[in-house]
Amino acid sequence: MKLVTAVIKPYQLDAVKEALHALGVAGLTVSEVQGYGRQKGHTEVYRGAEYTVEFLPKIKVEVLTDEIDVEKIVDAIVGASRTGKIGDGKVWVTSIDEVVRVRTGERGLDAL
Amino acid sequence: MKLVTAVIKPYQLDAVKEALHALGVAGLTVSEVQGYGRQKGHTEVYRGAEYTVEFLPKIKVEVLTDEIDVEKIVDAIVGASRTGKIGDGKVWVTSIDEVVRVRTGERGLDAL
Amino acid sequence: MKLVTAVIKPYQLDAVKEALHALGVAGLTVSEVQGYGRQKGHTEVYRGAEYTVEFLPKIKVEVLTDEIDVEKIVDAIVGASRTGKIGDGKVWVTSIDEVVRVRTGERGLDAL
Ligand SMILES: Nc1ncnc2c1ncn2[C@@H]1O[C@H](COP(=O)(O)OP(=O)(O)OP(=O)(O)O)[C@@H](O)[C@H]1O
Ligand SMILES: Nc1ncnc2c1ncn2[C@@H]1O[C@H](COP(=O)(O)OP(=O)(O)OP(=O)(O)O)[C@@H](O)[C@H]1O
Ligand SMILES: Nc1ncnc2c1ncn2[C@@H]1O[C@H](COP(=O)(O)OP(=O)(O)OP(=O)(O)O)[C@@H](O)[C@H]1O
Ligand SMILES: [Mg+2]
Ligand SMILES: [Mg+2]
Ligand SMILES: [Mg+2]
Repeated sequence: MKLVTAVIKPYQLDAVKEALHALGVAGLTVSEVQGYGRQKGHTEVYRGAEYTVEFLPKIKVEVLTDEIDVEKIVDAIVGASRTGKIGDGKVWVTSIDEVVRVRTGERGLDAL
Repeated sequence: MKLVTAVIKPYQLDAVKEALHALGVAGLTVSEVQGYGRQKGHTEVYRGAEYTVEFLPKIKVEVLTDEIDVEKIVDAIVGASRTGKIGDGKVWVTSIDEVVRVRTGERGLDAL
Repeated sequence: MKLVTAVIKPYQLDAVKEALHALGVAGLTVSEVQGYGRQKGHTEVYRGAEYTVEFLPKIKVEVLTDEIDVEKIVDAIVGASRTGKIGDGKVWVTSIDEVVRVRTGERGLDAL
């Protein structure tokens, strides 16, 4: 199993959610984070205003998935969150040893 | 070393904390997240009210541990966070290359 | 590629940011978390006051990096976040399968 993590622009969350839903992705977890990439100290546009602050609000999206679906999930997230402007985000993939569904105790792919 | 991550119902945090304490787990990190699982779009009860919203508040719990304790930590979290209702949560395990205690610089199992 | 994760005292974030900047680290992601380590139930000083509460506010810092830079990044974070007092924090390293820059679609080391 794999965990796909994405840090995206907040207003791209709906597009990402819909793209994942269209793929049949069953669940996801989101959280509020702040960050910067390679343009630290340069301006980035957020809600129509230019910022030179270092940290900008971003949303972290996490999706647990069968390894077989990783590429299409990464592609869906990248496609849906791309605006073409700097700060669009980063997606990364981590290997997961085990997953458990709390309600049923199911493990592995059955827990997804 | 391993990292056990759980996304649970907020009001189960105390039970999880106590179950981990009973196992002698030394530390943990929690954060506020939002999420949905397989019943996206269906109703789920939160604080006595039914919600059809997609995202519900959850708590993420993270525990760094020696590999030898992973199974009992997973079982303790699953046991303590289970209510039997949908949305009870998900637990997953990731392999960790290295851990460091900042104050002392200790590494590996000594850092836990 | 690797992900270096640190949970540090909030007022050490600026020092960590500067230490990483001095190393040429291009980006990072931070979030608010709460946690405790081995002194759960004992007092820890936060903003000049002593707390016996279990959870204290911490900042989680995440840095995606080339494997070759992991040790110097870990050392920089540990050095910059150490005050010598309990609760200084924990740093851990996870292996990452893949990274993608959303704007360009670049993958692997090019995406960092
Ligand atoms: N090396 C990194 N480690 C951890 N998080 C990162 C890293 N780089 C970027 N991020 C996170 O991803 C967010 C978006 O980064 P961003 O899209 O600006 O990356 P970038 O490499 O600078 O690409 P671009 O040139 O398109 O802006 C940042 O705000 C930060 O939260
Ligand atoms: N595939 C997933 N990827 C990432 N996070 C997930 C995933 N599935 C569930 N989660 C997280 O776990 C939380 C709880 O999920 P939930 O217990 O509803 O899982 P489920 O598989 O739908 O099980 P159940 O049928 O018991 O409801 C979600 O709110 C979400 O934060
Ligand atoms: N085993 C653990 N699992 C997950 N998070 C942890 C763990 N131990 C510590 N943390 C996180 O790191 C933060 C700082 O921990 P802390 O520095 O108190 O570790 P410690 O091992 O008790 O070291 P010290 O003796 O120097 O206090 C905690 O508030 C918590 O968020
Ligand atoms: Mg950038
Ligand atoms: Mg569910
Ligand atoms: Mg401590």
